[in-house]
Amino acid sequence: MNAILNHRSIRKYKPTPIDEATMDEILLAGTRASTTGNMQVYSIVVTTMPEIKQQLAPCHFNQPMVTQAPVVLTFCADFNRFNKWCEQRNAIPGYDNFLSFTTAAIDALLAAQNVCLAAEEKGLGICYLGTTTYTASKIIEILKLPKGVVPITTVVMGYPEEIPDLTDRLPLEAVVHREVYHDYSADDIDRLYAEKEAMPLTKKLLVENNKETLAQIFTDNRYTRKDNVAFSKALLQVLHDQGFMNNQE
Amino acid sequence: MNAILNHRSIRKYKPTPIDEATMDEILLAGTRASTTGNMQVYSIVVTTMPEIKQQLAPCHFNQPMVTQAPVVLTFCADFNRFNKWCEQRNAIPGYDNFLSFTTAAIDALLAAQNVCLAAEEKGLGICYLGTTTYTASKIIEILKLPKGVVPITTVVMGYPEEIPDLTDRLPLEAVVHREVYHDYSADDIDRLYAEKEAMPLTKKLLVENNKETLAQIFTDNRYTRKDNVAFSKALLQVLHDQGFMNNQE
Repeated sequence: MNAILNHRSIRKYKPTPIDEATMDEILLAGTRASTTGNMQVYSIVVTTMPEIKQQLAPCHFNQPMVTQAPVVLTFCADFNRFNKWCEQRNAIPGYDNFLSFTTAAIDALLAAQNVCLAAEEKGLGICYLGTTTYTASKIIEILKLPKGVVPITTVVMGYPEEIPDLTDRLPLEAVVHREVYHDYSADDIDRLYAEKEAMPLTKKLLVENNKETLAQIFTDNRYTRKDNVAFSKALLQVLHDQGFMNNQE
Repeated sequence: MNAILNHRSIRKYKPTPIDEATMDEILLAGTRASTTGNMQVYSIVVTTMPEIKQQLAPCHFNQPMVTQAPVVLTFCADFNRFNKWCEQRNAIPGYDNFLSFTTAAIDALLAAQNVCLAAEEKGLGICYLGTTTYTASKIIEILKLPKGVVPITTVVMGYPEEIPDLTDRLPLEAVVHREVYHDYSADDIDRLYAEKEAMPLTKKLLVENNKETLAQIFTDNRYTRKDNVAFSKALLQVLHDQGFMNNQE
């Protein structure tokens, strides 16, 4: 619980490597996560070699932590292993479709969160990189991911060089709905975002970005329609290329 | 770490309800998970009313735990709240595309795993239901999910009536790749699946299902191409209907 409540994304790391026994315990914690039908349709690529991290860096928009952190973990939806097993056992796999991709992505993400919490409990820091789905085809090339494998998220890990403050969150009532979904009124939105909008950090961002509202920083600068559309097309192409879009019998 | 290593899926629950303070602590743990750009683009629908659980039961293939467990949590990818906020703040959201769905689904799943581990640390049991993505359109109707919201996974939660044995997992080397992906040889597959295939449970399943190999139980009975294709089409339609497939500028 402490690990959960004290989580912060760490963006500066000491060069200290993570010893193998510790790493194995952390990875083992990943494998204890729930998995659909106990198929374990995910893989974790553990990258520590500086030259490979260097190649991955542009896929993550050259955020310095990708080369600085001792370990980069790429969590992948993976039906390749399962398909090979089926084929060797006189069974015909039917997992080249979108549903199977979704199943495998869920498996990968539950394992990822276990890995992160196990690492944090051992005094390590982590940061998720949302860039993985944006640049999946390049990551596939660098990490030599075969058909049936799609990278879903990346985690950098190491001993923290600095511990930032906890980040703000919306009040619990913003994300929790009782019994069924209760859609938000205009007043609800104002109330739920009031604290975030009043933060000194928000005021600072508005000045820096020369914007009228915090929401505009998201829509106009950070997560633009133009980028989202380009990344959507690229990701759907990756699903197609990696063999997850044969949605016909 | 204990919660992580001792996880088992609980399928029989005591009727004891979960008190509100405990539930709030668990949900709060969910909100501490990493989230893309701190947007928190997910929602958690907490269902306890017997009549609504009864409606949800067929969406989860009438597994008895859906009505038996005191709480059913539906984790949703949710850009609805964020979009409403943008629109009220003179910002034009561009989140009606596949990339945004993926981002929101990742947020929802990391929150789900935090919720599960927090619950397990408090002595509660959980079970993930993989059926959510199969029957999303029906769940959307029952839980009144508006456009911009897609259910990703469901967790039943309560005090365990029985504690089953830990389930087997493949050896760590089956899911972990060092530096880059190393594809599996036929010998690798034989070695990695040997222990699972030799289990008494496997032998029992082969007799019960009248099958030659365990893999055939997956391909022919549990996760068939026919079902996967039907669920793939339905899920893609849901993404379209809920406003996540406008992949054009």
